Amino acid sequence: MRTLRIVALLLGAGAAASARAQTPAPDAPATFAEVLASATPSDWRPLNPENTLYLELPGGRVVIELAPAFAPQHVANVKTLVREGYFDGLAIIRSQDDYVVQWGDPDAGDEKKRRAIGKGQRTLPAEFTRAVGAELPFTRLPDPDGYAPEVGFSRGFPAARDPASGRAWLAHCYGMLGAGRDEGADSGGGAELYVVIGHAPRHLDRNVTLLGRVVQGMERLSTLPRGTGAMGFYETPDERVPIRALRVASDVPERERSALEALRTDTATWERLVESRRNRREPWFKEPAGHIGLCNVPLPVRAAPKAAQ
Amino acid sequence: MRTLRIVALLLGAGAAASARAQTPAPDAPATFAEVLASATPSDWRPLNPENTLYLELPGGRVVIELAPAFAPQHVANVKTLVREGYFDGLAIIRSQDDYVVQWGDPDAGDEKKRRAIGKGQRTLPAEFTRAVGAELPFTRLPDPDGYAPEVGFSRGFPAARDPASGRAWLAHCYGMLGAGRDEGADSGGGAELYVVIGHAPRHLDRNVTLLGRVVQGMERLSTLPRGTGAMGFYETPDERVPIRALRVASDVPERERSALEALRTDTATWERLVESRRNRREPWFKEPAGHIGLCNVPLPVRAAPKAAQ
Repeated sequence: MRTLRIVALLLGAGAAASARAQTPAPDAPATFAEVLASATPSDWRPLNPENTLYLELPGGRVVIELAPAFAPQHVANVKTLVREGYFDGLAIIRSQDDYVVQWGDPDAGDEKKRRAIGKGQRTLPAEFTRAVGAELPFTRLPDPDGYAPEVGFSRGFPAARDPASGRAWLAHCYGMLGAGRDEGADSGGGAELYVVIGHAPRHLDRNVTLLGRVVQGMERLSTLPRGTGAMGFYETPDERVPIRALRVASDVPERERSALEALRTDTATWERLVESRRNRREPWFKEPAGHIGLCNVPLPVRAAPKAAQ
Repeated sequence: MRTLRIVALLLGAGAAASARAQTPAPDAPATFAEVLASATPSDWRPLNPENTLYLELPGGRVVIELAPAFAPQHVANVKTLVREGYFDGLAIIRSQDDYVVQWGDPDAGDEKKRRAIGKGQRTLPAEFTRAVGAELPFTRLPDPDGYAPEVGFSRGFPAARDPASGRAWLAHCYGMLGAGRDEGADSGGGAELYVVIGHAPRHLDRNVTLLGRVVQGMERLSTLPRGTGAMGFYETPDERVPIRALRVASDVPERERSALEALRTDTATWERLVESRRNRREPWFKEPAGHIGLCNVPLPVRAAPKAAQ
């Protein structure tokens, strides 16, 4: 079949399975598929079930990895809310094209009707940035970024740093999870959450607390019908997408878990992978970019090999 | 209702209608809504029906503006194919998350089964770049870009330039329309088309011919179910989304047209609009970015005022 080959590869969960190329010499220029095929088991890390959420929608499961290194209070609060069943039976209330989907309590603004928050917190101090620290690995991207002095990857998340201020923060790339807030910086807390479904809205960096990213099932969020109200809110309750459950993976019986591994972002393999995307060697490409944007770097995830489960 | 106010505005067709802010002094810092509200009729341009396509899907119409200034041969060829009814009854055959949807003849690779191309061309010389010229206005963005020496807007399209080579080209932002090709640079022609539905794949710039952008109805493409085959191809004919018709707007009776206007990108209003997005003045924002990426600049489109129709 005549095919638009504007990518030569599958990304995401299927990437490893489809990477059947020969392993090149460690220093040779390589394609993405070749680098991924050369990855060893130690290049991968299993997702920690204690920091993994399962969002169960009518269309299936969305798997989210939390980032306690960047937003410890928000992560702890969301897990408290999840374990109380706070989100179960609530709904996705907003889907704005090229921007975000968002879920929470549609009645959150009505003190009489809204769901009790239990031991969780409705609001928390903002966790927009954190101190750079030795305990926070950072593999810097070689290319410049318009929104931050330095960008790269920390523990599998796209991140940024400012050496002048000594602060680090997560970046609003496709699939990132954030905590909605009102006008005050400290008015969020995680009871209302959103995921980026469009071109990275990097102007939100350092303006909202990011606390994780979707690692599997993005298409279950990105294909939801767009809301026709202001900012993509659904206009009637019938349009909302019900949340069957939101669970911490470690609370789910092991046989029902999604056992996933993510490629580590602090290895030589990772740096070769980034280079394979900065300058594409697949013959389809006529003009290698010589550059890659932070949110254009794929973060491979795969089913954990059986032996590792 | 407690609301995630991570944008204070509607973009796209509803933007003008929702911009009810007072008009500020011309030199005062302003929000996006204020700038848009201050736009005069001459800041808007009607879409030329001769360079506008209507893609009619079961879910409704997608309006595309063509870019003959950048890809004259591809635009002419696509219009020839459209006027022969080449695309009518063909289908969207691919939907890859965070990447592209693509349509064409599923049997294009089978010389016996494929649809006749008529007076059109199956392939054309690549139109990846064109010469910079006085007849091509270019409003440069003040911020740097990693993928090109200069970026900005030409006739309403996101574009790039290289002063060293004297070449200009369109950029792969959300909603851009391109001509799929095989491995050879000159193997495309417009019989197979794709639209970007995810984070801008800028590494495709200068590797594929771009020939337009979606100006209305993007959600009809971006929410299509993702294909489960390699690269997001649908695996069975039943999954494909039929194309009821693809028409040049000027061939459609006037009463059935979508009368739209786009904000001009060569005006003082445009430059103020860009600045309103480089540094957000809405009180929700705590940390203005001081920067904007090429593909983060909104390109407002509105229904033409009745008097203009």
